[in-house]
Amino acid sequence: MERQVSVIGSGREHEAAAEEVGRLLAERRCTVVTGGLGEVMAAAHRGAKSAGGTTIAILPGEAHTDANPWADHVVVTGIGHARNLAVAASGHAVIAVGGSFGTLAEIAFALRLGRPVVVLGDGPVVEGVPRAPTPAEAVETVLASF
Amino acid sequence: MERQVSVIGSGREHEAAAEEVGRLLAERRCTVVTGGLGEVMAAAHRGAKSAGGTTIAILPGEAHTDANPWADHVVVTGIGHARNLAVAASGHAVIAVGGSFGTLAEIAFALRLGRPVVVLGDGPVVEGVPRAPTPAEAVETVLASF
Amino acid sequence: MERQVSVIGSGREHEAAAEEVGRLLAERRCTVVTGGLGEVMAAAHRGAKSAGGTTIAILPGEAHTDANPWADHVVVTGIGHARNLAVAASGHAVIAVGGSFGTLAEIAFALRLGRPVVVLGDGPVVEGVPRAPTPAEAVETVLASF
Amino acid sequence: MERQVSVIGSGREHEAAAEEVGRLLAERRCTVVTGGLGEVMAAAHRGAKSAGGTTIAILPGEAHTDANPWADHVVVTGIGHARNLAVAASGHAVIAVGGSFGTLAEIAFALRLGRPVVVLGDGPVVEGVPRAPTPAEAVETVLASF
Repeated sequence: MERQVSVIGSGREHEAAAEEVGRLLAERRCTVVTGGLGEVMAAAHRGAKSAGGTTIAILPGEAHTDANPWADHVVVTGIGHARNLAVAASGHAVIAVGGSFGTLAEIAFALRLGRPVVVLGDGPVVEGVPRAPTPAEAVETVLASF
Repeated sequence: MERQVSVIGSGREHEAAAEEVGRLLAERRCTVVTGGLGEVMAAAHRGAKSAGGTTIAILPGEAHTDANPWADHVVVTGIGHARNLAVAASGHAVIAVGGSFGTLAEIAFALRLGRPVVVLGDGPVVEGVPRAPTPAEAVETVLASF
Repeated sequence: MERQVSVIGSGREHEAAAEEVGRLLAERRCTVVTGGLGEVMAAAHRGAKSAGGTTIAILPGEAHTDANPWADHVVVTGIGHARNLAVAASGHAVIAVGGSFGTLAEIAFALRLGRPVVVLGDGPVVEGVPRAPTPAEAVETVLASF
Repeated sequence: MERQVSVIGSGREHEAAAEEVGRLLAERRCTVVTGGLGEVMAAAHRGAKSAGGTTIAILPGEAHTDANPWADHVVVTGIGHARNLAVAASGHAVIAVGGSFGTLAEIAFALRLGRPVVVLGDGPVVEGVPRAPTPAEAVETVLASF
């Protein structure tokens, strides 16, 4: 299997950064895992596809059609916010791009399970979690953590 | 049904505070919900029982016998860390006593679902979440939030 | 803790049987656990309360208010149909009263986890699972299994 | 996205049939989703890879390394048996090859969510679920259901 990196977060203002993260991850041959819905999740998938990468959506609901159009593979969990655990756990590392409480839960689970986490820009502040000022630095930090 | 307050957290050094929180909640006729295991969870249940209260354990594993001895009612979820969502969601409000990443995930889920949260002492720092210096103040803050 | 018996199933035509099961379980000092919603779940809780028993609702959604009015304690899981695992696992034994696919999933999980199961009336047919013709016999079979 | 078919089941005696199912699905350009562990799950993945197909593992545990070696993409759910819901839901259709209680739970969830199900050989008997005598017929039945 290829390395998998989960890209988490939310907020329309972070879509450009998320798209860049997705693109860079694909260029480095990492599969991009997200929660499969819109905004940051869709942008990260779109970026990955623009670079010929592979994308996985881990959905909270019960229908494949909830996934954004850039998802190659769709995992339908049906477990609502508890799918945040699966999103965090399915990455060999995690990059947060913006985000609020749901993203904070994912960061917490990633740390609980020992997955390296990097927060980009103004994402949630968590003690001990490194921050990166740019998509490129976020991706390099994550790749160095493998 | 009685009001339910989830007490979350971990760390042996916080057991005394958690026991006091459990006792005070029971005196105020709140059912004490926890993740059902040891340390802070057991202490909160023990405190509640010392005041004649009612306790509910929401376990991550598959066996009733995982619950601490002060649990009146035992919910066996079998879903591992994802049970943190159920612990957070089952409280009409949430009090964190110490704790690390698992506690942070519970705080994040509580905020996501609109449950009032108070952090006691040196528990996780989350922007916008009120902190209380003593068990009594934590309990009063939570009761005022209903 | 008291013994917990999960009552599962669905169908308005099975409410009278479920209510009788709930009442008999409460008379035998068993706490009645259900999925917390209507029909068979509500009827089992109502029967238990009519005999002074204790009831626990394990809800699929995110709001305490989804629970039927006879639920003493409400566990809000937020995990949709996956809460069927928690319902099955939380009983020391399980009684099915009618029901369809969701009930079948609960029976399967109960068997997977080694919980004794009895099916009342025309509930799902599963190889090796005993059936009881009346609520009284279902309850006696379950009590004998502890 | 490609069509996804979940292959469920267990039992060493069903590995040959599962491998054939995986191979045939890949030849028909369906992605093969399984619970990601051994026996039937590994065999279905192995068959799919032998035909150049794509495979997804949806694991119950917390580590990528739990997946069988033929899994291309690994979703780490951390939710134990509740991941059976995700396995059932993630297929546009489901084929059961042998199997016991866990498989029965997956069939039940698939039916609950409206996913077409076919049972191959001596897998669980569920009223109304079609059975197929051979891998080829199971795959044709599933493809006809899309």
